[in-house]
Amino acid sequence: MPYPGAPSSDILTLLAREFGPDLLTDAEALSSRGRDESGLRLPPAAVLLARDEAQVVRLLLLANEHHFAVIPRGAGTGLAGGCLAETGGVVLDLTAMNRIVRIDTDSVTATVEPGVLTGDLRRAAKAEGLFYPPDPASLDTSTIGGNAATNAGGPACVKYGTTRDYVLGLSAVLPTGECIRTGTATRKGVVGYDLTRLLVGSEGTLGVITQLTLKLLPHPGHQACLAAVFADLGAAMRAIITVMTRGHLPSAMEFLDARCLKLVGDLLPEHVKAGLAAGSDKGNAGGEALVLIECDGSELETLRAVDEIESICRKQGALEILPALDEAGREAVWKVRRSVSTRIHDSCAVYIPEDIAVPIGKIADMVAALPEVEKRHDIVIYAFGHAGDGNIHLNLTAPHESARPRVEAAAEECVRLALALGGTMSGEHGVGLAKRHLLPLEIAPVSLKLQRGIKALLDPNNILNPGKLFPKEAL
Amino acid sequence: MPYPGAPSSDILTLLAREFGPDLLTDAEALSSRGRDESGLRLPPAAVLLARDEAQVVRLLLLANEHHFAVIPRGAGTGLAGGCLAETGGVVLDLTAMNRIVRIDTDSVTATVEPGVLTGDLRRAAKAEGLFYPPDPASLDTSTIGGNAATNAGGPACVKYGTTRDYVLGLSAVLPTGECIRTGTATRKGVVGYDLTRLLVGSEGTLGVITQLTLKLLPHPGHQACLAAVFADLGAAMRAIITVMTRGHLPSAMEFLDARCLKLVGDLLPEHVKAGLAAGSDKGNAGGEALVLIECDGSELETLRAVDEIESICRKQGALEILPALDEAGREAVWKVRRSVSTRIHDSCAVYIPEDIAVPIGKIADMVAALPEVEKRHDIVIYAFGHAGDGNIHLNLTAPHESARPRVEAAAEECVRLALALGGTMSGEHGVGLAKRHLLPLEIAPVSLKLQRGIKALLDPNNILNPGKLFPKEAL
Repeated sequence: MPYPGAPSSDILTLLAREFGPDLLTDAEALSSRGRDESGLRLPPAAVLLARDEAQVVRLLLLANEHHFAVIPRGAGTGLAGGCLAETGGVVLDLTAMNRIVRIDTDSVTATVEPGVLTGDLRRAAKAEGLFYPPDPASLDTSTIGGNAATNAGGPACVKYGTTRDYVLGLSAVLPTGECIRTGTATRKGVVGYDLTRLLVGSEGTLGVITQLTLKLLPHPGHQACLAAVFADLGAAMRAIITVMTRGHLPSAMEFLDARCLKLVGDLLPEHVKAGLAAGSDKGNAGGEALVLIECDGSELETLRAVDEIESICRKQGALEILPALDEAGREAVWKVRRSVSTRIHDSCAVYIPEDIAVPIGKIADMVAALPEVEKRHDIVIYAFGHAGDGNIHLNLTAPHESARPRVEAAAEECVRLALALGGTMSGEHGVGLAKRHLLPLEIAPVSLKLQRGIKALLDPNNILNPGKLFPKEAL
Repeated sequence: MPYPGAPSSDILTLLAREFGPDLLTDAEALSSRGRDESGLRLPPAAVLLARDEAQVVRLLLLANEHHFAVIPRGAGTGLAGGCLAETGGVVLDLTAMNRIVRIDTDSVTATVEPGVLTGDLRRAAKAEGLFYPPDPASLDTSTIGGNAATNAGGPACVKYGTTRDYVLGLSAVLPTGECIRTGTATRKGVVGYDLTRLLVGSEGTLGVITQLTLKLLPHPGHQACLAAVFADLGAAMRAIITVMTRGHLPSAMEFLDARCLKLVGDLLPEHVKAGLAAGSDKGNAGGEALVLIECDGSELETLRAVDEIESICRKQGALEILPALDEAGREAVWKVRRSVSTRIHDSCAVYIPEDIAVPIGKIADMVAALPEVEKRHDIVIYAFGHAGDGNIHLNLTAPHESARPRVEAAAEECVRLALALGGTMSGEHGVGLAKRHLLPLEIAPVSLKLQRGIKALLDPNNILNPGKLFPKEAL
């Protein structure tokens, strides 16, 4: 398969004529669209700040005619380099197509353009008593188109699933420049192959999403949560599994391992800190783990659920419990959870964010295996994440840049461990550039061949986001 | 594309040698596997009652070598002829692969073979405090493999989605005989294209599912419901939309139109019947509509939700309300809903079950358009179904077989009406043989070309369930 790169200078001139002021080639535009949250820097040859679907079509037709790469991009909050122009090419920036076309209260759906910020969509839905559940950490800065392209998810997955569960239908431009409408505007639809979910999560390699029809839900209204400290992660996970097998479906179940807890422990209220210190005195081998469980629904219902969950946690040996029933309490507890990433990031020179996922029942095993990896590579691993869906953010760190190769080796080892436990190398971040070399560890040759066949069927000239997702040596 | 049919008698001999007693060719076997619930009768040349994946592989390898058709089949409860051997061929019966491999309470998942009855899976999950939500009407007689192949859904869609939302990963044999593992055993997974959902809903044309890993949920425990009669369907739908925009997410919201209500009205309690009669006296133009709303969760929570929904229904002008808070009450109310199909079926010689879906806000418009269709074609249409997801079961009937062409013409008109309202021709039943001629009304040429391309990529010899789903004139 060919591997197109940047357009020639003649073609750039042609593009400038075609798109006028919407084609950006100034240094700031190229630099800002050459970045995402992966830390990689790969500036494109030009940026098209698309205003409508017709421009997307024209760009893709030209790319096929002249064989240059087109890299679709939302807000660039990805962590895997999936929207970067590895070989130059033209970045197709969709952030200006940001209309909320309609919140349809009669049909409980939303129709939006891809550049809408996910947080804006959530607020617009809430104003009508409705709810768009997927909650990637980046929801206030990432776009719904990017969320769909990467099948973004967050803590709410345990109750509500991920982005793919809310995309009913799409308008998209195929790499050939043909426009397609997939799926339905209805909650049920079983006519033909599921092209909607073929595009969702394809990381911008199979089509450019130009409009989305999304399923909304009634807004649950209230939220209440509790934080609980357990002697170790095994005990914490037993509590979480007991919660689920006793009929409770929380809207988030998060955990921090002992290392993370030390890093952000100062944010906890005094009595919890005191409990932690007491626990340490008892000489807990693995160290304590913090669990955060949140419920949503009517006020009465959430308070009652948190009450019952508290009693389950106590029976399962929680050392300390901190209910957070009002907004201020919730904010305090979530601040602990949210501060972990920043503090890890700020505390070390080398930092690789893995986001493996394992079956829920294997989370404790996965985390228990980390000290061996740390020792073998002389690095430090912080583990936290989504206990309700098995998605663990492993933050592999070292204090000096010289240790990077060791951190990378440890990251691959963690991926292998997750796979051995029946897991996957990525629960949220995707493959992009960052993980494509590892893909054959997870995806068997038959599946890889089939996926390459699908890519070739939709994108015969390989002009759309070339090189992403597939192992490079076998383009 | 070729269109293979039955194997030659030489090949049948070879198959008999290969599969011994698992290859069935007796009249009963051919006749029973030549039927589904569509009313069509298309017996195959032979039936392989598969015992394991290895047999599936061998059959598909032989089919590719000798170019005969293989038609995968579960319990044959489909309504669209999707599992029938149109041109002979070998039916691959998967009902003997019916092991529940594991209900994993620690990971809140199930691993099952395709022949497991969906009802058996639900019962096995419930015994562990867990819940498999999709609830097609056939759940006690249909298989989970068939449910996945058709993306089956039922009343619970409004709260819980359909089968595709619960399939985390699949083992499947591709038409080429290659084995593939798709998806993950985890609730999150974003590595590579979504081949799982490409297979789900593909009506057995892209692969044979040999094992499924399914997401389970905590079992909600309790259910409570209410039935409410409204002056017309427009009022009923306004109540339903108000319920959803006021924060309630019922686990079912069903409706019966006035014709259905007349057909099963004798099953209602006396005071509701009296209310209906009074309503008729007031001369309601469209006639009354019955709504059934069910909530699940903790006992307290369901009772409270039903109570609040009752008050919403009253404010929206419900003529009669019948709460059904205990098991006997629920059973009585659901009996009314469930009896509709049978009574329609028993009351007329010609009966075509359409299952269009429209956006929830268009249900009343769709049903309001039916009297015109009835008049134009001199037939009778009964409308009932899933108010919570827009899936309307239109039962088009006539008293004499001679009217069949008129009923068929009316069915196509209903499909066109649904599409004009932003809907789809099938919310649950699928395309199969029954609707393939209508596919181009819904699926644009670009999409159809792409779907045919995917079929050809996976099944170059078109041996797996040939002719299904795609319009026949353009195989």
